[in-house]
Amino acid sequence: MIRNLTTVRGIQCWGAHIGIKSMRRDLAIIYSEVPASAGAAFTQNKVIAEPIKVSRENIANGKAQVIVCNAGNANACTGQQGLEGAQAMVKATAKELNIPEDMVLVASTGLIGEPFPTDDVVKGIETNIKKLSSDPKAGSFAANAILTTDTFAKEGYRDFTLDGKQVNMAGIAKGSGMIHPNMATMLAFVVTDAAIAPDLLQKAVRECTQVTFNMITVDGDTSTNDTVAVLANGLAGNEEITDENSANYQEFKHNLTDMFTHLAKLIISDGEGASKFVEYRVKGARTEEEARKLARGISDSTLVKAAMFGRDPNWGRIICASGNVGVPFDYTTTDLYIGSRDEDMHLVLKQGKPQDFDRNGLKRELRESHIHVELHLHQGDAEATAWGTDLTTDYVMFNSVYTT
Amino acid sequence: MIRNLTTVRGIQCWGAHIGIKSMRRDLAIIYSEVPASAGAAFTQNKVIAEPIKVSRENIANGKAQVIVCNAGNANACTGQQGLEGAQAMVKATAKELNIPEDMVLVASTGLIGEPFPTDDVVKGIETNIKKLSSDPKAGSFAANAILTTDTFAKEGYRDFTLDGKQVNMAGIAKGSGMIHPNMATMLAFVVTDAAIAPDLLQKAVRECTQVTFNMITVDGDTSTNDTVAVLANGLAGNEEITDENSANYQEFKHNLTDMFTHLAKLIISDGEGASKFVEYRVKGARTEEEARKLARGISDSTLVKAAMFGRDPNWGRIICASGNVGVPFDYTTTDLYIGSRDEDMHLVLKQGKPQDFDRNGLKRELRESHIHVELHLHQGDAEATAWGTDLTTDYVMFNSVYTT
Repeated sequence: MIRNLTTVRGIQCWGAHIGIKSMRRDLAIIYSEVPASAGAAFTQNKVIAEPIKVSRENIANGKAQVIVCNAGNANACTGQQGLEGAQAMVKATAKELNIPEDMVLVASTGLIGEPFPTDDVVKGIETNIKKLSSDPKAGSFAANAILTTDTFAKEGYRDFTLDGKQVNMAGIAKGSGMIHPNMATMLAFVVTDAAIAPDLLQKAVRECTQVTFNMITVDGDTSTNDTVAVLANGLAGNEEITDENSANYQEFKHNLTDMFTHLAKLIISDGEGASKFVEYRVKGARTEEEARKLARGISDSTLVKAAMFGRDPNWGRIICASGNVGVPFDYTTTDLYIGSRDEDMHLVLKQGKPQDFDRNGLKRELRESHIHVELHLHQGDAEATAWGTDLTTDYVMFNSVYTT
Repeated sequence: MIRNLTTVRGIQCWGAHIGIKSMRRDLAIIYSEVPASAGAAFTQNKVIAEPIKVSRENIANGKAQVIVCNAGNANACTGQQGLEGAQAMVKATAKELNIPEDMVLVASTGLIGEPFPTDDVVKGIETNIKKLSSDPKAGSFAANAILTTDTFAKEGYRDFTLDGKQVNMAGIAKGSGMIHPNMATMLAFVVTDAAIAPDLLQKAVRECTQVTFNMITVDGDTSTNDTVAVLANGLAGNEEITDENSANYQEFKHNLTDMFTHLAKLIISDGEGASKFVEYRVKGARTEEEARKLARGISDSTLVKAAMFGRDPNWGRIICASGNVGVPFDYTTTDLYIGSRDEDMHLVLKQGKPQDFDRNGLKRELRESHIHVELHLHQGDAEATAWGTDLTTDYVMFNSVYTT
């Protein structure tokens, strides 16, 4: 049995080909039959795509009922014409569904700086909203319709229990671009039938994004369009979560973190031009923020990524990258482990001193596709994990031959 | 007539092969016959090589008389053994020259985390100090003895006038690593016979470094060993510069900036694995700091660098990278020029709107080795320039196959 977005109570979807992209589905609609609590996190880039400006306003009241996303055109750097296009998406969707305009969230992904094809998108919305369906294939169509250069659709599903009620949670995502960074949007849309107050949902989305989507890195740039949005429509029938100290909030947040982690890892796994998936764990940091900065900083280092491609247990680069992050870092109290098997990592550096490790064995392990790097700082109790790819000659070729 | 370090009055040099590296000169000594004002800037990396710890202490009084630098071993991540090695370099040099220990600056470049060959270096110092010479070939030997993976020695010379006296200024540098980042040190040593007070020299070094060496980027990482040091021994006979508002200070700083710029550009030009030299100019920023951050941020972007390799006039990546830097940035007031000829740059974006430029002509220009990118923000009067390379498949290959 396929379980995806449409498994969530009250969720209908569709994904259609409306002609922005030549061959593939390029319009996704995710609709909740009843108004839902809504939380979102948007790009930190100073250049913000037009649909994000519109969605930020519409989500301010903590409620939403539908997410509409086109692929093929990012509606970024498009000025007034693009802003009006995003507004037209909202208007058409609200009218067709007979809901208030501020219940509509919009998103776009694709080329930056191309005029937005407003008429095509509006016509696509008008034609396809009547096809909304709770059939699992409709969820799958939606998952496919938000892709650009991704090589596979990214979906996730899980269920859990709140107040004895079974709760569904499902999500879709698309990758941050590696080959076509003008299409480099990271999108994730999650729906659940849990009942949770808007302010707590917003808090959960913000905090879970920080330890998941914000910890993946392909090329260090965040795009103009990055969006994570979550709808929680309450149809599971649990008592609405209103207390951040309650066990139910912790359970919800735990599951949202797992969902985000799953989607984030799928994005990294689809790094075209990348040959490895690398997990960077920092332990024993003084604060979680410092741990996150270190883990992300190492995973961002061009030199560390090139070493991963070369299967080179080059601890000097990892230590040097750590020192560059900008947080206090003392290599003389640091242990460093590298390997491909959690139960048998190689201790490469102990208290800052190079160890006599099995260099050839480790080199063999570094040929594998999943690599772990673990840094123990012995400065405190905080930890963080980041995920990244290697830097390959393919990455450079793909990224250089792409023509605007 | 060769003019280099030894052209500066009172400067003697030597560069010797002492066996740390297999074939090349690996010990440089730059000595001033009289005590000199000294200024320096050191790495911002939190992991600091041992010689930097020692030199920072010795330069605190604003005076120095000799710089000793070995290549082949970075003396970084070497702990107490390395610290004692750096101290031994100081002791041996001071003893042989019969000067106080705090007049000695030391530097190292090479492999990180290898035990420091203290005995070899001390013996090398003892043997070679007696060879110090003001013959131009001795200056050239010194320039060669600080290199690691560099493909050519980097030297500069200029003269100017203060109080009617002819002043000499000369410098040498080595590149930040691209191929062997464990040897990724950026070193620059400049000597001049100008007379300038230590505090003003220190101020000039700090400020000039910020707009020159700090604005070059190869792979975004700063090494554990980066050092810029300047000695000014006063033998030109100008009245000592003591006023930062004086015309003489401005003239000195102007020449120091030019010298640093020259050496910085040589470092970028020697980017092995790089095929292009790219100058990024940001104009019309609100503050110089924001201009610097933007110029450096764009030049650091993996995606922009890959586009340069691919000869792709991809303005979307430049705008996206600008938005990622973290300073306020409004693309709708921004003009963007790209080209290879200053007098005839292509206007690609005007007030945020894509322009109808000669795409094929620009693509042809992007085949050249020197590219200019210019961003006009129209937000203020501040400007800054950064220099970078492209990201090539060779870079990745070189950086991945290097084995620790």
